[in-house]
Amino acid sequence: MSIDAAIERMRDRVTAEPARAKVVYRVDGALTGPCRVDLVAGKHTIIVDESPALGGDHAGASPPQHALVALASCQAITYRFWAAYLGIALDSVTVAVEGDLDVNGFFGFDDTVRPGFTAVRIHVTPSGPETPERYRELADAADAHCPVLDMLANPVPVERTLGVG
Amino acid sequence: MSIDAAIERMRDRVTAEPARAKVVYRVDGALTGPCRVDLVAGKHTIIVDESPALGGDHAGASPPQHALVALASCQAITYRFWAAYLGIALDSVTVAVEGDLDVNGFFGFDDTVRPGFTAVRIHVTPSGPETPERYRELADAADAHCPVLDMLANPVPVERTLGVG
Repeated sequence: MSIDAAIERMRDRVTAEPARAKVVYRVDGALTGPCRVDLVAGKHTIIVDESPALGGDHAGASPPQHALVALASCQAITYRFWAAYLGIALDSVTVAVEGDLDVNGFFGFDDTVRPGFTAVRIHVTPSGPETPERYRELADAADAHCPVLDMLANPVPVERTLGVG
Repeated sequence: MSIDAAIERMRDRVTAEPARAKVVYRVDGALTGPCRVDLVAGKHTIIVDESPALGGDHAGASPPQHALVALASCQAITYRFWAAYLGIALDSVTVAVEGDLDVNGFFGFDDTVRPGFTAVRIHVTPSGPETPERYRELADAADAHCPVLDMLANPVPVERTLGVG
């Protein structure tokens, strides 16, 4: 299905049955090595691991790397959808993302340091036949509608339950 | 390297040379299909895609799924490290995470709806020979030090630059 058709189909679906706009994503995982985690996300199996310096075997990218994979890919896909939506021709998109992390937080060596990223930088390069102004318009629309950018930049309510006892 | 050794080595390293606590993660990606993004994270190549209903080919898990992969795996690994740190025996950890998303946000059908997760639920099941109280202690320590949990629950400063013009 084309992106235009996917957008129109989604609009028809959500208009006809508003409850279908609410989606629940689910991922299940288990530790299968010192730092290796095998996860299932829908029909996909994903392996996460740490580097040997952290006791892992490098069997997969690490959790912070996966957070940046989520962000970079979400940016690229959001540019695709919003280009279609806004009628902006888009030949390619590349995305480079960086996240700064201070390991004093994770290890608890200094509890004044947050364990997560202290800063994230995104550099996006859209290309195609349009003017720079049109791509700036696209970037602003993408930033306002990118799910993973939103969930990093703004707080998400998280509830944790424990299966013991 | 064992987890205990990795912790002690990291402590020695950060004590000797505090600047080494600051790590920069980087991921690069490019759109290679309607919704497919090929990414490089260190030595790992990861493919992200959407389902056919969104114009993709299901070549990989989607960006919101990768955000949950990052969260679930980070929880499991943080339990591993903090169990070692606190001297709590830990035989296994399984993690199930769910994220609620309202597609009205991403598609801009309703700009009062945020594009990211509106809520996230984490269910962790650690097991081993310790008392439930010890695993509750572990869970509290893990929640306080889990990098990806922190970056979802609390805002991260994000800067975006654009490569046009």
